[in-house]
Amino acid sequence: MGVNENVLKPLDRLASTLSAEMDAVNALIRKRMSSRHAPRIPEVTAHLIEAGGKRLRPMLTLAAAKMLDYPGEYHIHLAATVEFIHTATLLHDDVVDESRQRRGRPTANLLWDNKSSVLVGDYLFARSFQLMVEPGNLRTLEILANASATIAEGEVLQLTAAQDLATDENVYLQVVRGKTAALFSAATEVGGVIAGAPAEQVQALFDYGDALGIAFQIVDDLLDYGGATETIGKNIGDDFRERKLTLPVIKAVAKADAEERAFWSRVIEAGDQRDGDLEHALTLLARHGAMEAARADALDWAGRAKSALSTLPKHPIREMLSDLTDFVVSRVA
Amino acid sequence: MGVNENVLKPLDRLASTLSAEMDAVNALIRKRMSSRHAPRIPEVTAHLIEAGGKRLRPMLTLAAAKMLDYPGEYHIHLAATVEFIHTATLLHDDVVDESRQRRGRPTANLLWDNKSSVLVGDYLFARSFQLMVEPGNLRTLEILANASATIAEGEVLQLTAAQDLATDENVYLQVVRGKTAALFSAATEVGGVIAGAPAEQVQALFDYGDALGIAFQIVDDLLDYGGATETIGKNIGDDFRERKLTLPVIKAVAKADAEERAFWSRVIEAGDQRDGDLEHALTLLARHGAMEAARADALDWAGRAKSALSTLPKHPIREMLSDLTDFVVSRVA
Repeated sequence: MGVNENVLKPLDRLASTLSAEMDAVNALIRKRMSSRHAPRIPEVTAHLIEAGGKRLRPMLTLAAAKMLDYPGEYHIHLAATVEFIHTATLLHDDVVDESRQRRGRPTANLLWDNKSSVLVGDYLFARSFQLMVEPGNLRTLEILANASATIAEGEVLQLTAAQDLATDENVYLQVVRGKTAALFSAATEVGGVIAGAPAEQVQALFDYGDALGIAFQIVDDLLDYGGATETIGKNIGDDFRERKLTLPVIKAVAKADAEERAFWSRVIEAGDQRDGDLEHALTLLARHGAMEAARADALDWAGRAKSALSTLPKHPIREMLSDLTDFVVSRVA
Repeated sequence: MGVNENVLKPLDRLASTLSAEMDAVNALIRKRMSSRHAPRIPEVTAHLIEAGGKRLRPMLTLAAAKMLDYPGEYHIHLAATVEFIHTATLLHDDVVDESRQRRGRPTANLLWDNKSSVLVGDYLFARSFQLMVEPGNLRTLEILANASATIAEGEVLQLTAAQDLATDENVYLQVVRGKTAALFSAATEVGGVIAGAPAEQVQALFDYGDALGIAFQIVDDLLDYGGATETIGKNIGDDFRERKLTLPVIKAVAKADAEERAFWSRVIEAGDQRDGDLEHALTLLARHGAMEAARADALDWAGRAKSALSTLPKHPIREMLSDLTDFVVSRVA
């Protein structure tokens, strides 16, 4: 997903509140990422899963279920499912993007090969489906199966849309809903469904996850053009070099004159990049206020995420989810 | 899976008996392989799905359900699910094997690129899970999710085992159960489960699919070394050039003297292949009766498939499934 999860304080508070459940999720993940027959599988999965991502997505599932006083244990399965889907998509993304680094470490496709990343990703997808069947809840199955399809569809759409200057903000939103927000919203929604929440609360959880995911991705787009000074474990200009039409660029292209348009066409569509092009791109983004406009969008989506929470019962976790939203956008505020 | 489905007469009789159901399966496949947002998806899936595979696997599901007088309609969903899983694995296999031809046509990874094949494969996997959720039957969900995990595990195992002379017939069987037989046995088993068959009939259907799948793969291995004179749409020696340790080679390696072992090590393990090596490999296979021994194994598995059928009720479809088994091995008899 190309998303950096450098969200510190509020996520730490969530992690502390949910530590018993997260331990259970981590134990289940370790158990299910093994393989009786193929030792390559735990090698690759351990490299990625033990690399210490923040586990934001499974935590959203646990938070939703706990906030609604779910007394059972299947939120553990659902949270592990969400992390498995996320990990599988990371493996395949790194193949598709030909990435060499993830979370500051070499990618699996670099350490092993593309074949291992493709097939171990498939294994994790299949394991995620095994996990999600276990609670025996058809509605959560449906939500997670639908999210998987939306993710894959968003990734394919990005393949063709990312290097096409005709891509507008509507297409961008479809891509982002697929590649990032679909798993956020499924994570929160299944937490509510397994807790037996009424329809309007389930909808509020979906809306929260959807808006948070979109804000999260816009922030990631901004950080890639130096939207913050903090260390983010990813180099400035990665998206530029990968010719990805992210939100700041889409906004700058929309305001480009003929000469600027020719520049974007050369570097993004034709992929002909030369020394100084990244600096020139940054100048164009600044000239048209594209960073500020994208930042305003991120804040707007964060606001929508927080309003969605108002439908949910008052609970310390609800406040943490609200703070988490502020924190996500504070990285570019 | 690298399996050629050139099974003519008995499959045609099955297809004719099940033609109304197969039409429904094909309509459902076409409907579900589409995408509202990403036009690349139907382009790629149409290329593969419309290429005219024999649809053997979905037909096994329909056959099992119909033989057991299933009155409902969900065997259509399950059969389409099976074909989607199969198609997704073909897309990923062709990336992993760097294949350039499939069913006599250029592969999707060649026509588009590896990225499209990986991501569209993921989309088809996700669509298969959406489809399999719809019947609302947890047992069929479990069987198909387990089969998906077994398939991926078999593929990963093949990655490491295929070019390692230490791979013996036990490991070979694990790989084949994964990459081929797991989907055959799941296809027949879910047909029985959805029909509400008693446990011993469901087990018999599993055993039939498992043994048929293994016989099928061994025959495919044999054909790759020229086990038959008929046109098979695949070149003789493909497995050799791809350095795959298939059953005839495993048998020849087991009987190899030091010099022969050095040859196999060079061409399979080291991948150093020269002019005349394929001919020399064929000589070694003949010297140790490896083709005949593999053929005997195929016949043995075909026999097991046919005995499994005896537990099932007498029915014209049961006879067709028996004839189908004979036909599969007749290609190398």
